[in-house]
Formats: sequence, structure tokens, C-alpha cells
Amino acid sequence: MIRKTVILLLLAIVIILPSHADGADIDYKNYFDPMPRRVDSLTNPLNTAKVMLGKMLFFYPRLSSSGFISCQSCHNLATGGVDNLPTSIGHRWQMGERNAPTVFNSALLTSLFWDGRAKDLEEQAKGPILNPAEMASTEELVVERIGSMPEYVRLFKKAFRSDPKPVTYDNISRAIAAFERTLLTPSRFDKFLKGKAASLTEDETRGLELFVETGCASCHRGPGVGGSMFKRFDYGEDPGRFNVTDDPADMKVFRVASLRNVELTYPYFHDGSVWNLGNAVRIMGALQLGVTLSDQEVDYIVSFLKSLTAEKIIIRMPMLPPSNPKTPRPDPMWEEAPQVTSEELPEVILPEVQDGG
Amino acid sequence: MIRKTVILLLLAIVIILPSHADGADIDYKNYFDPMPRRVDSLTNPLNTAKVMLGKMLFFYPRLSSSGFISCQSCHNLATGGVDNLPTSIGHRWQMGERNAPTVFNSALLTSLFWDGRAKDLEEQAKGPILNPAEMASTEELVVERIGSMPEYVRLFKKAFRSDPKPVTYDNISRAIAAFERTLLTPSRFDKFLKGKAASLTEDETRGLELFVETGCASCHRGPGVGGSMFKRFDYGEDPGRFNVTDDPADMKVFRVASLRNVELTYPYFHDGSVWNLGNAVRIMGALQLGVTLSDQEVDYIVSFLKSLTAEKIIIRMPMLPPSNPKTPRPDPMWEEAPQVTSEELPEVILPEVQDGG
Repeated sequence: MIRKTVILLLLAIVIILPSHADGADIDYKNYFDPMPRRVDSLTNPLNTAKVMLGKMLFFYPRLSSSGFISCQSCHNLATGGVDNLPTSIGHRWQMGERNAPTVFNSALLTSLFWDGRAKDLEEQAKGPILNPAEMASTEELVVERIGSMPEYVRLFKKAFRSDPKPVTYDNISRAIAAFERTLLTPSRFDKFLKGKAASLTEDETRGLELFVETGCASCHRGPGVGGSMFKRFDYGEDPGRFNVTDDPADMKVFRVASLRNVELTYPYFHDGSVWNLGNAVRIMGALQLGVTLSDQEVDYIVSFLKSLTAEKIIIRMPMLPPSNPKTPRPDPMWEEAPQVTSEELPEVILPEVQDGG
Repeated sequence: MIRKTVILLLLAIVIILPSHADGADIDYKNYFDPMPRRVDSLTNPLNTAKVMLGKMLFFYPRLSSSGFISCQSCHNLATGGVDNLPTSIGHRWQMGERNAPTVFNSALLTSLFWDGRAKDLEEQAKGPILNPAEMASTEELVVERIGSMPEYVRLFKKAFRSDPKPVTYDNISRAIAAFERTLLTPSRFDKFLKGKAASLTEDETRGLELFVETGCASCHRGPGVGGSMFKRFDYGEDPGRFNVTDDPADMKVFRVASLRNVELTYPYFHDGSVWNLGNAVRIMGALQLGVTLSDQEVDYIVSFLKSLTAEKIIIRMPMLPPSNPKTPRPDPMWEEAPQVTSEELPEVILPEVQDGG
């Protein structure tokens, strides 16, 4: 009985703490939500086989015509789900036009790409595979490669049970999207939001207060701390969402970035021009909120932002199946159209037998 | 008592089986050894911190000047430790000169590179980082990048305790080599060698018999099923080991490839010119042994070779630390000498404050 009372008392203290001891009068629940345990899709429901298959495809370099570039190349799961380059390196070392956003917590975004041109992860996943400056592949090539390998075909059948012909480009993107939906990375901030005020240090809590008071949280809000709305960001010459909608009101409008793992996802902004998180904060304050933040304020906010870094990420590398004589070969130098060459040699050409040794 | 006798009897059967029921009169222990549980180095002894650090460095793209290529790019642990390309793609999309061998079980090789020019993994690991056609880095750049990051420095201190200045290019290669030494992949063949004859199918066992009887096992022997000697291989124009020793006797001499995971490490030979494992077997038979193998014999041998494929490989992705303002930035277009630019901006340049929205 006494034990129960003590536990209840402790619980009460923990629950009451954040709204009293820290953050003064701010109710952070008006701005943020803790990381959900699971995000699913009505049109592409998760299942174990689909997620496993999606992970394999995410790591599979033969989705690119060259056989060298996979989703993992630019959305490196070892480095915060990004490549830490201003813009990504693609097929034949072409440089991309915008910075690659992280795949971690991309399930929380309400639209994909900097200009929001894809409505969901399924639509997004189809883009880079076909982009001539990225993976430079074609739907036919990818489906032919995957369809040639019995291990993949078996997994597609398991992942898409009701589908009579499961190896399709649409299902490839569905599997990748399903895997990506599992890439959720809670951090100390979520413990804080759930009531454990001590999960943030004093500096981090002060940074959070400033983040809300200065107005950052007006846009960087929700479970992703951003990622759910569009805003004008007059930085550089990129016309942003205007290119998608042709609406002058969308000139230089971008999807607000999620700040989850922002410590790891440098360099910042759609053009990857800013390497220093403090400088990014300073620029956002000045441009978006008309506020000149002091060095001290910037330091506090950066402290808070670092509390959004994943505490741990556990990802086991997939073991990808080997190709076979029916699999179209990689073509690193593809320029015009991918060369679909079977691995099967038309006949065995034996070199002249000579002294072996 | 009865139980004990039964177990002993069963054990006796299991131990006796391979030399009697299978493989006729061949004692396979004269040719092969099961995969060792652990391979260590006297000059670079394994320790947990060193292996963990080595894994991080293996996956770290900033060992390359571009920040895009890591060891993992060409020795992909998801695809048998290779890139499945004839020759690898390197800095600025340059094509390498020889096929990238697998890092799996590379601890079993008695020399490294196709021409055996590196005596151990430590020496090997130093090569591709500096090769202008591969990672195109310099010792100074790599040491400066790694040394700028406190998480790495802490791990180097732990991994190389007796070293007063542990972040050196030598220690980077030692850590990578230590990690690589742990990449051992036993397969069903090891169970067979340890006495479980039923671990191989009839076809595989017949293939193994042929592999020994035809003479393949004269060179492809030991725990690596190859990897421990040099042999002349008069295939293509590559002068092989001659380039290392300048000795005419070494013209077109190469290190015998290990056949562990050969099912996964296509395309084959030093020039990666042969995609089909059966064709590779046929060519080896003709060129090295003066034997024309029948299709049936090739099929049996290929069956056996596939029993050398790892049963499972469990590798958890490392989580790499973020860089900081002191870390030299990546330079994807480096041509002459890597540009060492600090991530720290000399001053904060604030764009003119405009309408935010």
C-alpha cells in the first residue's frame, strides 16, 4: 500500500514537472507530439515481408543503371540518412540540384521533396530511380532485373499476397516506402514531451523555450518538429514550389524541413549551402522571423536541436541475393538508354589452352 | 548410461561418415580446413574498441576526398563484400583497372590485391584511400578529418591504448584491418569438413570430388579454398605480379582467388570479364589444368562452389558521428590536390532580412 502511494506520488511529480519547473508557462504539447511508435499507410499497409523486401531494395545498387548507386548511397543510414554533401552525386558523377533530405522519420512528412511534389513516400521513391542525374534507370530495366531473381520474386509474392503479378515498379516503390516508414528515431526530446523533464539539460530546455518564444515552432512543429507545411524562404534563386504549381504565390516556397536529427543532416537548406547549425539558426531567425539572435540565444537553440538526435539506431544490413544469367547486367557508362544485356553469354568462348602453372 | 552410449555411437557415425560414405577415398582434410572461429594478428591484435572503430571507418565516406566513397561502396557487405561490377567506380566516376575482391574472409589470404603487393590487410587498407582513381584522398586530409571529431579521437584512444598520439594514418588502416579480420563467413562446407556429411547434397559432394580429382584443389585449398599462393594465369593482357617484382617469371602471375562466397562475387577473374560461374569453371579447367569439363561436370562443381556461400551474415550498421566546424569539408570535384576547407565560416554572412511568411 505504501509502495503504491510512493509510486503514484513519483508519477505525479514526473507528470507535473515539465509544465511547472521547466518551460515556464509554455505548454509544449500545443506545438509538438512525441514520436509515434508506428506509422502505417491505409493504401500500403505494413507487413513484415514488405518491410524486409523494402530494406533489401533500399540497399540494392542494381536499381541504378550503373549498378553502383542505391538509395543508401545518398540516404546513408550510417550518417543520419543523408550524404552530408551540399547536393548529391549521381550517375556518372553528376551533381544534383537540391540537398538530399534524410529518410529517417520521413514517415512524418506530409509531402516529399523540398518542393513537396510527391504526396507520399511511395510517390517519392519512384523519382530518384528514374532521374537521369541520380540512379538513371528505367521502370522496365528495374522490373526486369528484380523479376529475374527468384529470391526477390518469392518476397514480392509474400509482401503483396493479393497481387497476381507482384513484381511491378509500383510495388518496388511500395516496398521501399514501407521500409522507410519504419525508420523512426525517437530521442531525448520525446522522453521530455512524455513528461520526463530531466531528459533535457537546462541549456536544452532554455533553447526549447527560445525556440517556441522566438516563433520557430510556428512552422517547425508536430512530431517531426517541421515537415508539415509550406513556407516562403527567400534564400537563393531556387523557385521552389513554383516549379510544381506554376502559381506565383508559390515562388520560393518550400516544405518546412523536419528538424529531427538536424545535428547529423548538415549541410543545411535546399541548396546545402550552410554547414554550421548555428549559422542556419541565425539565418532562419533573420529571414523568417525578422529577429537577430544573440550568440548566446543561438547556442541555446542549437543545444535544444541536438536533443532531437536519435539516441540509437539499430539497422542490420540485408544480405542481397545474387543475380543469375537472366539478370540484365549493370552498365556504368549508360548515356542514352540503358543497355539491357543478359549475363548469359551466347556461347562459351574458351581461350586457347596454354601453359597453366 | 544407455543414453551416453547412444550419443557416443552417433558421434562416431558422424565422425566416420565423411571418409567412408562420401568422397570415396579422398581425405578432404588434406586439402581444406574449416573456417577458423577467429583470426588475429600479432602486430595488430584485435580488441573490441578497435573492431568497432574499424567498422565505423569502413563505412565512413569522408575517408574519400569527395565524401561520397567509403570502403563499403566497392566492398559492399550487403552483396558479398564486392560491387558486382567488372571493375570498380571511383572518384569522379573513374573505372578501376582490376575487379574488387571481397573483404569477407580476407583474413585468410596470405597476401592482398590480385598481384599480392600488400603483405597484410593493414597494408592493403592504405591503398584505395590514397588511389587517385578510387577514394582520391591524402593521409593528411584523412587524419585531419578524423582528428577533428572528438567521438573518433575517443575511440582511437580506446583502441590504441599505448599510443600517445593514436589518430594516425597507420592506425586508421589498423582499425579497418581489425574489423575486416572479423568478417568470417562459415558455410555448410565447414559443417561437412567438421564431419556432418549430410551438410552437402549428393550433387555438391560429387562436385567436391570432381573439384579435388580434376586438380582445382591443388591451388584452391586451405580454409579460404584459395588465397594462399601465386599462379600464372594467362588470361588477358594484365602483367599481374610482374608489375610488383619486375621478375619475368612473375609475368601474368596472380594470387589464387579464394572461392569462399564465389556465388556472390561475380563477375569473375582479375578483369571481371566472366559473369557466369559455370563459364569461369570451364575456363579455369581448360587454361590451368588442360581439362575440358563436360556440362554435367561443370554443374556439379558449381553446385559444390555454392556450398561455400555464407549461411548468414549479421552486420549492424554503425552510427557515425557528425562532423563539426573544424572538420575539413568534402570536395566532390577535387582534381589536383584536395581542398582543405574548414566548415567554420570566417564570419556569419546574414542575408538581407526580407518578408518571411
